[in-house]
Amino acid sequence: MANQVVLGIDIGGTNTAFGLVDRLGNIIVETSIPTNNQQNEVQFFERLFPAIEEMLLKHEDSDLIGIGIGAPNANYYSGTVEKAPNLNWSGVVPISKIVEEHFHVPVKITNDANAAALGEMLFGTAKGMKDFIVITLGTGLGSGIVCNGQLLYGHDGFAGEVGHIIVIPNGRDCGCGRKGCLEAYASATGIKRTVSELLCNSQQPSLLRELTYNEITSKMIFEAAIQHDAIAEEAFQITGEILGRALANAIAFTSPEAIILFGGLALSGETIRIPTQKAMDEYTLNIFHGKTKLLISKMQKANTAVLGASALIWQEHVSQ
Amino acid sequence: MANQVVLGIDIGGTNTAFGLVDRLGNIIVETSIPTNNQQNEVQFFERLFPAIEEMLLKHEDSDLIGIGIGAPNANYYSGTVEKAPNLNWSGVVPISKIVEEHFHVPVKITNDANAAALGEMLFGTAKGMKDFIVITLGTGLGSGIVCNGQLLYGHDGFAGEVGHIIVIPNGRDCGCGRKGCLEAYASATGIKRTVSELLCNSQQPSLLRELTYNEITSKMIFEAAIQHDAIAEEAFQITGEILGRALANAIAFTSPEAIILFGGLALSGETIRIPTQKAMDEYTLNIFHGKTKLLISKMQKANTAVLGASALIWQEHVSQ
Repeated sequence: MANQVVLGIDIGGTNTAFGLVDRLGNIIVETSIPTNNQQNEVQFFERLFPAIEEMLLKHEDSDLIGIGIGAPNANYYSGTVEKAPNLNWSGVVPISKIVEEHFHVPVKITNDANAAALGEMLFGTAKGMKDFIVITLGTGLGSGIVCNGQLLYGHDGFAGEVGHIIVIPNGRDCGCGRKGCLEAYASATGIKRTVSELLCNSQQPSLLRELTYNEITSKMIFEAAIQHDAIAEEAFQITGEILGRALANAIAFTSPEAIILFGGLALSGETIRIPTQKAMDEYTLNIFHGKTKLLISKMQKANTAVLGASALIWQEHVSQ
Repeated sequence: MANQVVLGIDIGGTNTAFGLVDRLGNIIVETSIPTNNQQNEVQFFERLFPAIEEMLLKHEDSDLIGIGIGAPNANYYSGTVEKAPNLNWSGVVPISKIVEEHFHVPVKITNDANAAALGEMLFGTAKGMKDFIVITLGTGLGSGIVCNGQLLYGHDGFAGEVGHIIVIPNGRDCGCGRKGCLEAYASATGIKRTVSELLCNSQQPSLLRELTYNEITSKMIFEAAIQHDAIAEEAFQITGEILGRALANAIAFTSPEAIILFGGLALSGETIRIPTQKAMDEYTLNIFHGKTKLLISKMQKANTAVLGASALIWQEHVSQ
């Protein structure tokens, strides 16, 4: 029997990464093409398919058993991407159908946070867990909620929008058109906005006063905090406080064994984990106290998204 | 084959109701004994078991296939009740084991809100639904969350404590020892506290000014609202606003097809549903807009708890 592999594809706003993943979560080969957000989906697939075929040809000894795709606004149930932000695609693109008709293997899709959660369960930090939440702290805040070993999709396929629970009524503008959503505070962008707020409200000197709003990144804020920059340190405290309080509420919903932080801002490790844990402990209901671990993902490499996408197929083949 | 029945038991702080339920959700017989919260669990079961045996003897033609129990702080996984509020029981009571050893049939337990959710799914308002939330608006606020046809228990058996998400930081004292929990505002007790707040803050005349705090019930507030009592009407507006905002956040977690209101305060029907729906619609994230129904339970009779408890066993026998 040939070596079984799954093709994992991660469609991002800038790049689309794809690779072949075996049943143990080893990435055999991986590459990427620019997504090119000027193009429509037809032009995109016309570039993507030959690149995939070239990869498959070089690994003819492998047996492709399915394709898993992580994409913005992807719906697991319908196999479609609806109004993908940052892409110049049609309103509703039936990705699963398009890819299935080309490659003749089962295709499953979901959004990137859900794919990350599946990746963590099969190959990463959540291995062996049945109840956990993955929080991705990138440009926005995404979440993948796993209960009883199953990813939560909800009745419409879009469950797990923890980034859009309102934490500060009438708070900061959010990209969703409302105000005060968690992701406007707890994300790579959120902490940058907090720095901006502190630069105006506080008089403390800071390295960050030398940079424009557009120049500042969460990585720079982390590096400044390491050097005990007062503004950067306070920004992490505030971000952790707001995130921790929200996670205490998340625990009241699904009582997970662990909450796993993932993505750009999570690369700051203990600097974000410690203030978050403090607030989470403070606000968690008594009966849940000390039961839920707050962890930083061990899967922080660039290819995690491909691994997570492949998990959409592997979850049906790998016994827990 | 004899007619199969399940014994449903609902252990409340005041009374313990129990009855025989058939596969269609018909209650064949039902009765109750006082729980007597001065007694310990041994004394309680010494009274309960003979009463059940007497009932079974009168229905010898029925085949008892299991016993489902709803009880405060009941843990589905361990079969125990831990630190039951309002009961003079030991710290951890292994209810399932005690009852199983006496009656020699499978025993399952859970808390009353979870039992209500199962009852709604098998026999009530949520028949045919796979993703919904039941909110019980009684003395406190309980919740039973069903995702993908399964009740959410979480890793420790205590998931679904929506009553204890913090909605007003540093708000009203809650029975759990923290401040600002949803149930301190949205419950039969919560609306009474809101009336009390309005009686002091507002100068409007009200029927409710003639009653002591201890005398006022949510039913009286409802009756006053029906008569256009300004304080009572405003109390419903405020309660609905806070509840609706919290439910909008709940939708962002599990994206349910419906949220079903149940229990004492839900008996006020549209008077509580309409302001709740208004706030829920206003605060719900775009992609979920108009997708989640807000319903009042059709199962508002006293015996619903017994029906719900029986559903713990029937769920494994009734095909969806």
